[in-house]
Amino acid sequence: MPVPKHIFAPPFNIIRSSHVTLGITDLGRSRAFYEGALGLQVEDATGDALYLRGLEERQHHSLVLHRSAVPSVRHLGFKVASEEDLDRAAHHFKTLGTEHAFVEAPFQGRTLRALDPCGLPLELYFRMEQRPSLLRQYGRYRGVQPQRLDHFNVFAPEVQRSVDFYASLGFRLTEYAEEDGADGRIAAAWMHRKGNVHDIAFTNGPGPRLHHLAYWAPTALNIIHLCDVMASTGYLANMERGPGRHGISNAFFLYVRCPDGHRTEIYTSDYQTMDTDHEPLRWSLRDPRRQTLWGQPAPRSWFEEGSLFDGVALRDALFKADVLVAS
Amino acid sequence: MPVPKHIFAPPFNIIRSSHVTLGITDLGRSRAFYEGALGLQVEDATGDALYLRGLEERQHHSLVLHRSAVPSVRHLGFKVASEEDLDRAAHHFKTLGTEHAFVEAPFQGRTLRALDPCGLPLELYFRMEQRPSLLRQYGRYRGVQPQRLDHFNVFAPEVQRSVDFYASLGFRLTEYAEEDGADGRIAAAWMHRKGNVHDIAFTNGPGPRLHHLAYWAPTALNIIHLCDVMASTGYLANMERGPGRHGISNAFFLYVRCPDGHRTEIYTSDYQTMDTDHEPLRWSLRDPRRQTLWGQPAPRSWFEEGSLFDGVALRDALFKADVLVAS
Amino acid sequence: MPVPKHIFAPPFNIIRSSHVTLGITDLGRSRAFYEGALGLQVEDATGDALYLRGLEERQHHSLVLHRSAVPSVRHLGFKVASEEDLDRAAHHFKTLGTEHAFVEAPFQGRTLRALDPCGLPLELYFRMEQRPSLLRQYGRYRGVQPQRLDHFNVFAPEVQRSVDFYASLGFRLTEYAEEDGADGRIAAAWMHRKGNVHDIAFTNGPGPRLHHLAYWAPTALNIIHLCDVMASTGYLANMERGPGRHGISNAFFLYVRCPDGHRTEIYTSDYQTMDTDHEPLRWSLRDPRRQTLWGQPAPRSWFEEGSLFDGVALRDALFKADVLVAS
Amino acid sequence: MPVPKHIFAPPFNIIRSSHVTLGITDLGRSRAFYEGALGLQVEDATGDALYLRGLEERQHHSLVLHRSAVPSVRHLGFKVASEEDLDRAAHHFKTLGTEHAFVEAPFQGRTLRALDPCGLPLELYFRMEQRPSLLRQYGRYRGVQPQRLDHFNVFAPEVQRSVDFYASLGFRLTEYAEEDGADGRIAAAWMHRKGNVHDIAFTNGPGPRLHHLAYWAPTALNIIHLCDVMASTGYLANMERGPGRHGISNAFFLYVRCPDGHRTEIYTSDYQTMDTDHEPLRWSLRDPRRQTLWGQPAPRSWFEEGSLFDGVALRDALFKADVLVAS
Repeated sequence: MPVPKHIFAPPFNIIRSSHVTLGITDLGRSRAFYEGALGLQVEDATGDALYLRGLEERQHHSLVLHRSAVPSVRHLGFKVASEEDLDRAAHHFKTLGTEHAFVEAPFQGRTLRALDPCGLPLELYFRMEQRPSLLRQYGRYRGVQPQRLDHFNVFAPEVQRSVDFYASLGFRLTEYAEEDGADGRIAAAWMHRKGNVHDIAFTNGPGPRLHHLAYWAPTALNIIHLCDVMASTGYLANMERGPGRHGISNAFFLYVRCPDGHRTEIYTSDYQTMDTDHEPLRWSLRDPRRQTLWGQPAPRSWFEEGSLFDGVALRDALFKADVLVAS
Repeated sequence: MPVPKHIFAPPFNIIRSSHVTLGITDLGRSRAFYEGALGLQVEDATGDALYLRGLEERQHHSLVLHRSAVPSVRHLGFKVASEEDLDRAAHHFKTLGTEHAFVEAPFQGRTLRALDPCGLPLELYFRMEQRPSLLRQYGRYRGVQPQRLDHFNVFAPEVQRSVDFYASLGFRLTEYAEEDGADGRIAAAWMHRKGNVHDIAFTNGPGPRLHHLAYWAPTALNIIHLCDVMASTGYLANMERGPGRHGISNAFFLYVRCPDGHRTEIYTSDYQTMDTDHEPLRWSLRDPRRQTLWGQPAPRSWFEEGSLFDGVALRDALFKADVLVAS
Repeated sequence: MPVPKHIFAPPFNIIRSSHVTLGITDLGRSRAFYEGALGLQVEDATGDALYLRGLEERQHHSLVLHRSAVPSVRHLGFKVASEEDLDRAAHHFKTLGTEHAFVEAPFQGRTLRALDPCGLPLELYFRMEQRPSLLRQYGRYRGVQPQRLDHFNVFAPEVQRSVDFYASLGFRLTEYAEEDGADGRIAAAWMHRKGNVHDIAFTNGPGPRLHHLAYWAPTALNIIHLCDVMASTGYLANMERGPGRHGISNAFFLYVRCPDGHRTEIYTSDYQTMDTDHEPLRWSLRDPRRQTLWGQPAPRSWFEEGSLFDGVALRDALFKADVLVAS
Repeated sequence: MPVPKHIFAPPFNIIRSSHVTLGITDLGRSRAFYEGALGLQVEDATGDALYLRGLEERQHHSLVLHRSAVPSVRHLGFKVASEEDLDRAAHHFKTLGTEHAFVEAPFQGRTLRALDPCGLPLELYFRMEQRPSLLRQYGRYRGVQPQRLDHFNVFAPEVQRSVDFYASLGFRLTEYAEEDGADGRIAAAWMHRKGNVHDIAFTNGPGPRLHHLAYWAPTALNIIHLCDVMASTGYLANMERGPGRHGISNAFFLYVRCPDGHRTEIYTSDYQTMDTDHEPLRWSLRDPRRQTLWGQPAPRSWFEEGSLFDGVALRDALFKADVLVAS
C-alpha cells in the first residue's frame, strides 16, 4: 500500500488513546476480574458503573465498566491537547459531515462524541478529574501491576480507509502487514500519536468491532505471574492466547477475556517512535514471525471474535486476509 | 497404584543424576546449539567428543556429545557417594543377574556400566575431575545461563516396573499421574535422590527412549530470553513446546530440540523434597493442569518422539495412556 | 583452619533446618510485618502464638511468633529423619552430658529440646502436622512470595568449636572465611545437611545470638518488589541492608528487621552441594567480595546486633575479626 | 519556585535528547567498557572516534567516543523535527545573541552547534544516517541490553535560569526538588520533550558539568546482571551507586563510571508525561525518598564529581543545597 504521508499540523491535536467504556452484564463479576485478577484500581463505583485506572495514571479512569443488558463497547476515548482542540474537532467533524455531539460524561470536562467515517464511536475530551498517581504506592500493587492503558485494536472492514482517516488526524503509521505483490492490500496497521508503537491498530475483518484494549505492564515476569494467578483462581478459561512475543511491535503479550468476552491484552517491551522521520516497518502477511516470534499460531477465536460497538452496524470486510491459525 | 514404600537403606547410595552422553552426527553444528544458543560451557573438546557443563557445576561434564553415525543416547550417568558404593552396585547388579561392567571413561574415576531391568543403560561413578565453579564468573554467562543438569525423563514401556526398581535403589516418588478408578495404572512418575522433584522421571510409551534431559536455569526471564534468541538466530524450528508452567513439579519450562533431535528441557522453580515423610502428589490423567497449568496442550511430537538408546531394543508400552494433544 | 572431615554416619540423622520460635512483644504488629509485608502465610493463631509458613512448605510452621515480655529467640528447630533418630539424639546428648528433655510442642510429634555445647537451644522433632502446599495457589502469593525457610545464622563466640560440633553431627562445611596466614582463625562458617549452601552458619561474635533466619524467594525481582513495598508502607526503617549480592553463597540478599528487631534475610540463587566430595570454598577475611560482590559495605548494625536466646548467657567472642564496615 | 508555564508553541521544535560526544583518552579501553561490559553496539569506528547505539535505536549513534588528550564532553545532542526547525533555531540563538554555528558532523545532516545561556554546548540536527533496528536481533543482546539513550543530567550553577531557558524552548517540568519555605530555591529539575520524565535534568552545583548520560534498560534484572558482570570482570571500582530506586522518576537505577570517569546511569521504569495538563511533582529537599526510596544515601563522589565540557568555563553554584551524603 502507499504509506500515508505524515500530517504534522493536523486539524486538531489528539495526544493519546485514553480510556474505553465497556457494556458489562454483571458488574460484580467483572470487578472481580479487572480489579481482583488483573489488578486495576477501582477509583469510583456508582450504581451502574465502575471507574478503573492503572497504577501510574493520574486521570480518574482509563476503563469504565457500564451496566448493560448485553456486552458491548460504548466508545473509545482519546485525550486532546486543549479545550480549543475540542472545538476544532467539532468543526472538523462538521466539515466531514460526520455525526457528532457534545455530551456530559462523569468525571470529565466538555466531551465530544463522534463517529469516525467507518462507524467507530469516539469520545474526545481535554479535562478529566485528576487523582494522585499510585506509582510509588507499592502496597497497592496487585495482579499484573497494570500501569497504564496503552492502545486499542479494532477489526476494520476497510483498513486502508481507516488508516487514511487517522493519518489525516496526525496519527502516524509505525508497522503494517500487507499482502505480497504489487497490488498487495493492507491487512493490519499500527498507528500512534503518543510516541510508542500505537494508540490504535486496525485489523482486517468484519467491523467495526473492538479486538482488544491493552494495558502496559512492567515486565514479562508480571505477565507470567498473572498466568499463574488466573490459572489457579478460576480464570483458566479466560486465558485466550500467550504468553508470547509478537514480531510486530516486539511486545511480550498475553490476551485474556473478561466474563463478558471483552479482550484485554497485557503488553510490555515495545519501543519509541517520536522521531518525525521514523519510517514504518512492513511485514509480509506470509511472515509467521509477525504474529508470534516464537512460532505458536494463535487460536481461531483470537482471529474471529471481537466486541460489538453499541448501536453500530457490522459490515463485512472488503476482502479476506490469509493468516495462520492454530488448527 | 500402590505408592512404593521408601527404602532408607538402599543397596548402594546414588546421590543424584549427573551427566548424559549423546550420540551426535555433526559436532560443530551441535556445539553451536548447546554452547552458542543454550549457553553451556565447553570444558574440553577431543577429536570425537565435546564435554560441557553448567555454570555452577564443579564436575568436568554433565553433557557429553560423542561423534556418532546416527543420533543416539549412550547412557545416563549417576554419581554415587563413594568408591565402596560402586562395588556394592556391581554386587547388586550381579545378584539381580543384570548385565554390568567396569569401564574406562575419560575424566572419570572407576566407572560402572549396567543395564537396568527395563534395558536402560546406566553409568555409575564416584570420582570425576573437578573444575572451579563458574557461578561467580558472570562474564561467561550466555544464552539461558544454564546452571546445572537437573534430571532425565525417559519413555518406559513398563512404568510400574521402572518405579519399583528405582524405589528399590532408594529413589523416592514425588509426583505421579495415573488413570482414575480402582485399577488405575500409573502413566508417569517422578523420582528423586537429591532432594528436589526428580532425578529421573518415567513416562509411559514405547521404550526405553530418552524423552529429555533438563538443565536448571535461574528465572523465567532467562527462558524468555532464550526463546527470543533462538527465534532470531535460526533456531525457531528447534523450539518444540513452551514456555509454560507445568502443574506437575510447578516448573516453568521450555522444550528445545538439538539438530539431532535430542530434547532438552530448560527448567526452573520446582520445590524441595528431602523430608523423609514427604508424601507423593497424585494427578489424575484427566487433569489438564498436570501438563500445563495455563491450558495449552502440547504438540504431538512431544508425546511421541524420543531418542533411542545405543544398542537397546525398543519395546511397546504395556498400555496406551489417554493424554491431551494439541490437534 | 583445618577443614573438618565429613562424617557420613552421624550419631543421628538431621535432615534440615526447619523452624524457629521468636519471642515477640506485640503479635498484631508483628503479624502485619511477617504476613502483610513479607507475605508469609498464617496457618494458625492461638491466644499467645502465631504459626506461619512459606508457600511451598507442607509442614504446619517454619516460623512461630510467641508472645513475650521482651524480644528473644526460644530455639532453632531441625527436622530429623525418623522417630528413632530422636532417641538416638537423646542418647547422644546424654553421652555428651548436654542438657536435653522431651517436651510437648503444639502441632509437632515428640520433640526433643537440647542445648548445643556452645549454649544454642535446639529443638529436634520428626513429625509435624502436614498441610497442603500452597505452591500452586498463586492467588495467595503476597509480598516477597517466600517459599521456604532456608537457614539460620548465629553469632558464635567460638566458631571453631561450633563447626567441630556440627561437623560431628554430619553437617558439612561449604564455605568459610578465615584470617590469612598459617595460624588464621576461622571467622565464619556455612554448613549444610539438606544439599544447598547452608542450614546453619556461624559468625564470630558475642553469642550465642541469632544473626538472622532466612527465607528463600524465587527471584531478585521479588526482592526488589519487597523493597518498594516496605519503603512505601511504613517499613523503611526496617530495611537494614541490601539488596545486594553476597560473594559467599552467591546469594542475592535483602536483610530486614521486624518490629522487635529480629533479622530476616530474603535470599535467592545459591547452589547445590550434595556431592559427597564437594570441597568447601575458602574466603580470606580481607576479600571484600565475600560480603558484597558489588562493593557496598554493610552497616555497623548488621555486624553488631543480634537476637538473644531465651535464658542463655551471652559470652564474648574469643577474638575480634577484622571486617569492613560502612563508616 | 514558580513552576514555569508550559510553552506549547516553542520557537523551534526539539523532539528529544539524542546523543552525546565524549572526549576519551584511550578508545580501546573505553570500547571494552561501553561495548564489552554495558553492551552498546559499535556501529562505526574511525581512527579517532567510535560510534555506538542502543538496541532499538535506528539512528547511527547515540554515543560518540572521541579521542582526546583529557576526558571531556563536547556537546549534548538533540534531534529537531525538521530542517526548518534548524533554521528557526539558528534565528532564535541569533536573537538571543548566543554563540552558534552550522558545522559538519559525520553521519549527520546539517548540524547546528550553540551554547545555551548557561554555557552548555548543544548540537541540534534533523537528519542522521539510519540503520536497521537491532531490537529483534536478540543474538546481539549483551551486557545490560541497553535499548536507547534516555536523558542527560547536568550540574547547573543556576538551576532556575536553566529551567527558565529550557521551558522557553518548550521543555516541560515533570519533577523538581526545592528548599522548603516561601523563598525555597529550586535545587534540581527534570524536564522533557519526548513524553517521559526527562530529556534533560539540572542539578544545583558548580557547572556546567555533565553529571550523567542515561541509557534505558528493559528490567531491573538486566541491571542486576550488569552488577554481577562488572563485579566479576574487573569493573568493580567503576560501580559508583546502586542498584536502587529513585523516588524521583520512580526509576530503578545503577550509576557506573567509565575508565575516563564519565558517569552513565542505567535506568528503567519511569512513566509517561505527554498529557498537556500533566502537573509537575514537587519534592522537598529534606525528603530522603527523593534520592533513594529505599533509604541508602549516595556516596560523596556522586554529588560532587562531573565531566567538564570542552572549552567551557566552570562557575560556582549560586547557593549550596543541603543534601544527604553517605559519610
